[in-house]
Amino acid sequence: MMATIRVGLLGYGGLGQAAARMLAVKKQMILVAAADSKGYAYHPEGLDAARLSLAVSRHGSVGYDPAVGVPADAPIQALLEQQVPADGYFLALPNLPNTFMASVARTFITSGWRGVLVDAIKRTSAVEQLLTLAPDLQRAGITYVTGCGATPGLLTAAAALAAQSFSEVLSVQITFGVGIANWEAYRSTVREDIAHLEGYSVERARAMSDAQVSELLDRTGGLLTLEKMEHADDILLELAGICGRERVSVGGVVDTRNPQKPLSTNVRVTGRTFEGKTSTHTFTLGDETSMAANVCGPALGYLKAGIEMHRRGHHGIWSSAELMPRFVG
Amino acid sequence: MMATIRVGLLGYGGLGQAAARMLAVKKQMILVAAADSKGYAYHPEGLDAARLSLAVSRHGSVGYDPAVGVPADAPIQALLEQQVPADGYFLALPNLPNTFMASVARTFITSGWRGVLVDAIKRTSAVEQLLTLAPDLQRAGITYVTGCGATPGLLTAAAALAAQSFSEVLSVQITFGVGIANWEAYRSTVREDIAHLEGYSVERARAMSDAQVSELLDRTGGLLTLEKMEHADDILLELAGICGRERVSVGGVVDTRNPQKPLSTNVRVTGRTFEGKTSTHTFTLGDETSMAANVCGPALGYLKAGIEMHRRGHHGIWSSAELMPRFVG
Repeated sequence: MMATIRVGLLGYGGLGQAAARMLAVKKQMILVAAADSKGYAYHPEGLDAARLSLAVSRHGSVGYDPAVGVPADAPIQALLEQQVPADGYFLALPNLPNTFMASVARTFITSGWRGVLVDAIKRTSAVEQLLTLAPDLQRAGITYVTGCGATPGLLTAAAALAAQSFSEVLSVQITFGVGIANWEAYRSTVREDIAHLEGYSVERARAMSDAQVSELLDRTGGLLTLEKMEHADDILLELAGICGRERVSVGGVVDTRNPQKPLSTNVRVTGRTFEGKTSTHTFTLGDETSMAANVCGPALGYLKAGIEMHRRGHHGIWSSAELMPRFVG
Repeated sequence: MMATIRVGLLGYGGLGQAAARMLAVKKQMILVAAADSKGYAYHPEGLDAARLSLAVSRHGSVGYDPAVGVPADAPIQALLEQQVPADGYFLALPNLPNTFMASVARTFITSGWRGVLVDAIKRTSAVEQLLTLAPDLQRAGITYVTGCGATPGLLTAAAALAAQSFSEVLSVQITFGVGIANWEAYRSTVREDIAHLEGYSVERARAMSDAQVSELLDRTGGLLTLEKMEHADDILLELAGICGRERVSVGGVVDTRNPQKPLSTNVRVTGRTFEGKTSTHTFTLGDETSMAANVCGPALGYLKAGIEMHRRGHHGIWSSAELMPRFVG
């Protein structure tokens, strides 16, 4: 029986808070540390997710939780200096700027901490930066699993599995539907989506005020329709040897005013069999599963798989297309 | 870059021959050994799949291939005594009798051979026997991956992945459609299916003559409708911690007179999310993929994953619900 896994969360926005709520119902994991852009909190016996959320909504940071929070200018570094006994961290961080995830990984590498890191990263270019850190991660005794959300993540892994029936994979098409009742609960995520729109860039989206985002959403009736997105599913499937990245496409529709999904999220893998037949396998997510469930569930599942790798002494970087996530009870 | 993987095939019926044809188009693997119930054949530089098939159709065994075949009373043991440099074997053997796969595993254990074994086993009770061999496999330096076909295998792994969105998995329903043009090319497999029918047993199905099988199929219009089958998906998902085996059900329809599938093979995973929602993820196989593609593809993919495990020094037994298969180019 595996001992309880002590988990830290970096980022305490919509995703981080959802992960904390999920951790609260897991027997095999406890939340021992959290940090956001303004502070951190930790407790080796377990943090109270609800109280941390209260501190965020009232004061803007987990660092302002009166009992366990500490405001800090460089919260991740400050947290790591406390030598919290966390087995792994879920980097539920904004994907912007694009260099952020790799810079956080570097902070872990230089800190001397050893354990497992998982991210729910989105962009291909951000994964490329992480991959250059592979030797450093290995030397540092860190097991990093990248692309562990829904896409990349759950759907990438489903594509890697579906590929098994084929001699050659001709295309992988990921189409997601996301419905959120209120975009302001996912400020960073929505800006990341906007950055994928024609005429927008990561920088431009990030610089938008809340009023400007609202105005844009008013013009589109709350819908963001995204095509040919730069999504790391492509590089992860290429690295896993499944197909060239140009055969992978990601698009979708985000409804920012309706928790119901505008379409069922799915991945379609088309390939040619050894008998010369062309066919398509499809993996479709139930509409009633939220983005939070489809991102945080896999992230914790890969974290558990990463812990097994780490305990076996395997350090470096892997992806969601290479490991089978473990179910976290 | 991984060196070419040298593969052996045990069993040279429908599945074994399909695997050999698949291997013929792979760059990363070559077929170096094959055995069936009456003989064996091996060649360290690679066997010719078409010629072996010819020997089987003309003389009833790969052992009668004039250039590379050797007839034998105990072909697997005799093959292993040749010390063929095979990195792994796909046990494409009949599932009947139910003790057969475990007895073959024991033959490998006592032979001193070290490498990877994968099976496309079906029955829960057959997997239970294999599991008791875990310590012996570990001591022998063998990495055994069980349940690596379509179901258990591809669909079990898809269920393990789909489970990631849920806090609790309520049901896993596997429904397969199989279409084969001519049942006589899959004599063993069809008898295994018949054994699942109401009023039949493994022993009774196995004892049936070809004429008796034909007669049964005449009565059903060539269709075999199977419900609540004893299928090892249940124990594999239970062992992976995903849900109790009683929540897993397997059924399907086999059309023995039509290569078109009577329905699209799929797995439906219903669970409850951490937010209390109930939802169902679905993984559906394209109708144009044959049983051979959906069984042999995953089996070779798990064999490659097993080779990685073996090279890292991990010996013992794993299942398709625990490892991500590797794509074999």
